[in-house]
Amino acid sequence: MFLFKQRKFFLTTIVAGIILSFTTASSSNADYSKFPKFHRFPNQPLSRGRVQNIILFIGDGMGDSEITIARNYSVGAAGRLFIDTLPFTGEYTTYSIQEQNPKLPDYVTDSAASGTGWATGNKTSNGRISTTVGTDKDLKTILELAKQRGYKTGDVSTAELTDATPAVLLSHVSDRSCQGPQDMANCPQDKKSAGGPGSIAEQSIDHDVDVLLGGGKQRYDQIIDGGNYVGKTVIDAAKARGYQVVTNAAQLQMAQPASKLLGLFSPGNMSLEWAGQAAIPYPGSGPQRCIENQRPTNEPSLADMTNKAISLLKQKAGRGGFFLQVEGASIDKRDHAGNPCEQIGETVALDRAVKVALEYAKNHPDTLIVVTADHGHTSQIIPPPTASNHSPGKFSTLITADEAEMTVNYATNLPAQSQEHTGTQVRIAAQGPQGENVVGVLDQTDLFHILARAIGAE
Amino acid sequence: MFLFKQRKFFLTTIVAGIILSFTTASSSNADYSKFPKFHRFPNQPLSRGRVQNIILFIGDGMGDSEITIARNYSVGAAGRLFIDTLPFTGEYTTYSIQEQNPKLPDYVTDSAASGTGWATGNKTSNGRISTTVGTDKDLKTILELAKQRGYKTGDVSTAELTDATPAVLLSHVSDRSCQGPQDMANCPQDKKSAGGPGSIAEQSIDHDVDVLLGGGKQRYDQIIDGGNYVGKTVIDAAKARGYQVVTNAAQLQMAQPASKLLGLFSPGNMSLEWAGQAAIPYPGSGPQRCIENQRPTNEPSLADMTNKAISLLKQKAGRGGFFLQVEGASIDKRDHAGNPCEQIGETVALDRAVKVALEYAKNHPDTLIVVTADHGHTSQIIPPPTASNHSPGKFSTLITADEAEMTVNYATNLPAQSQEHTGTQVRIAAQGPQGENVVGVLDQTDLFHILARAIGAE
Repeated sequence: MFLFKQRKFFLTTIVAGIILSFTTASSSNADYSKFPKFHRFPNQPLSRGRVQNIILFIGDGMGDSEITIARNYSVGAAGRLFIDTLPFTGEYTTYSIQEQNPKLPDYVTDSAASGTGWATGNKTSNGRISTTVGTDKDLKTILELAKQRGYKTGDVSTAELTDATPAVLLSHVSDRSCQGPQDMANCPQDKKSAGGPGSIAEQSIDHDVDVLLGGGKQRYDQIIDGGNYVGKTVIDAAKARGYQVVTNAAQLQMAQPASKLLGLFSPGNMSLEWAGQAAIPYPGSGPQRCIENQRPTNEPSLADMTNKAISLLKQKAGRGGFFLQVEGASIDKRDHAGNPCEQIGETVALDRAVKVALEYAKNHPDTLIVVTADHGHTSQIIPPPTASNHSPGKFSTLITADEAEMTVNYATNLPAQSQEHTGTQVRIAAQGPQGENVVGVLDQTDLFHILARAIGAE
Repeated sequence: MFLFKQRKFFLTTIVAGIILSFTTASSSNADYSKFPKFHRFPNQPLSRGRVQNIILFIGDGMGDSEITIARNYSVGAAGRLFIDTLPFTGEYTTYSIQEQNPKLPDYVTDSAASGTGWATGNKTSNGRISTTVGTDKDLKTILELAKQRGYKTGDVSTAELTDATPAVLLSHVSDRSCQGPQDMANCPQDKKSAGGPGSIAEQSIDHDVDVLLGGGKQRYDQIIDGGNYVGKTVIDAAKARGYQVVTNAAQLQMAQPASKLLGLFSPGNMSLEWAGQAAIPYPGSGPQRCIENQRPTNEPSLADMTNKAISLLKQKAGRGGFFLQVEGASIDKRDHAGNPCEQIGETVALDRAVKVALEYAKNHPDTLIVVTADHGHTSQIIPPPTASNHSPGKFSTLITADEAEMTVNYATNLPAQSQEHTGTQVRIAAQGPQGENVVGVLDQTDLFHILARAIGAE
């Protein structure tokens, strides 16, 4: 009966009792048009109570198609990724709303509006970072709430730390482009010199988040234009606020829990894990195997960063436990680029980071782990191309772990352009206390409430 | 806090206790390449015991993207379909295997191999109907097992009754094209005149399924070439075996539970519910609203067929209860055609059929309802087109229930060709006894085992 020789894996599941009573008041009216719009389906929590630790993984653009592609390639169609092993699963909707008319949805979200959704429980328009649509008010984030309630906090990404997903937890600006103090063209009202809270980089420091790890050093090297640290770089301001600052993998490994930690491992986004031929129009690229181990050794892996973040937050944990967000950012970026190997390499890197959390949870079962995406993306598995039947876009054929050929299609935009996000509902999975609350069909904003309940804030 | 004015909806959920112990034997080895291939992840059943009734809905080609498109259009992004309300949700993998080398997966299944997977628990190659890859042996189906165990049985589809999805439950042929006794070019060994079991249509009758409703009368009008009914049409053979035969909605409504029922409401596939402009290359079709209520009144809706099937199976039910499969077939067919309105109309029609089952289950809580798809498909929600940024395939923009524009993309094949299935994992959802067994990541073949356990056959 047994399955994984190298890694024995036991899923022992006991349902002492599940009673689901599901009642609809009698009605002969199946006319959908009469349903009020923009009301949430009531997802009643299945359980409540304070959770010690929360580790949230966001696979940027990691829809069900992207998960399947990574699984087929790396472990075969019948294999299972670590993210597949979380016992509770649901799907959530990801739409944003329109800046000019917030009563209307925008069916294809970006990571900023999406992140504002899961981080604050509020829909906003594409491009906004935890601010309200139209009125530009700050929206309280789950990280801010966790911090208030005594949790240690961490924010980790393979993108720039000032990119949308890490940003939504620890900053409030009207536009995601406002990443450093010299990048404020689209948020003049937010500049420190204008009496605002400053750029995303500045706000990340001012939030005193315990562990900040990722790319984007170029933002933190910029000069602050107002406030207490005027004339200093954001890195200098961080040091003045008590951060130790590390810039490579060796330094990260040596970092001690005595102070807050800012790790900036690349000027921009961190390097990619894998390489391979990009998708091209018919006849497509490949068949190819991906080239692994492309990340420079001076940059830590997402798993390394996750491991270090947990060890620092754990050691520093007061009674509050910790809240940690970990983003696999370049799944999305390489899907935009139409490069399946790079996309898969980043998905596998996220999966290995999830493995770190699962290992931690083995000895800390009071840890809620959630793995989800912020939106769907372009890539699709399609049949092998022929002269008369093939994608009108670009595609590549990979030779998978099954030693079979898999064709991956990118056709949401013209081949020369950045491929697009899609509006599909995406998977959410969880393990640990209150993990069962993710089962069913949810909206992205429900994740905020699930997490807020888990930290006792709702 | 309450939400739906027209249709009050209470999801009251009580978890008396869920204890999930999730242990991995310690291992430092995260090398995926070492995992044995083609072994199932062990999905232990969360509960067991005999279930009175089972209603299985297959949305052909109804991936998460197709569900989201139908939801956005018909009830708005924040609305909920009936299929969304099932409390237990998972995702399953759908790959088939290759005829020439069954050790290799085929990452994009068709409905025949997919159906063989969920109906028999065995992977097979594309095109096969409940027969083994290579060796062409019959595979026992869940309907056959249910019948043996005293369940009344029903099989309902908007396609021809001899199309792949209804066929996998009640026939065994080497090729899905062998739908009627005169369609046997690809299955000479299966012909009655060759001593075989005959075409799918013949086998459907010979199985004595209690309720058969759908299209495909052209197959049943064909002359049988061997066996007891040689020289007769399949319809005449059906009558000889005790079937009442109906061919329109009025007759269906009048049908009595005294005998088995064969309903054939169209020569081929049943008519579509909605109409609209097909997708076209840039600038795309639309913006459009779909034209509803296109089905001729002499053809019953899928909801009508479901309702009648339940009422006949229920009235006839012995101690065995019933097993009923209901397929929304043309979701797939209109996704192939790149017609979003027609695709959505069929999805909504399936959803209304699910509503019928949910209503039945209110008073018959010993009913397991499962709603899933057989494979993913082409359609994607993408941003609005511009001259420089748009799909390289074909697309259409719809005006949804939100009164917002949604652009639906079809780009898995050239615009003039039939669009393709995709290899993504797809949603499975359930309600009722043992419904919790669908949670997590499963394979399609697991659905057979879930159902087999529910009828006490495993």
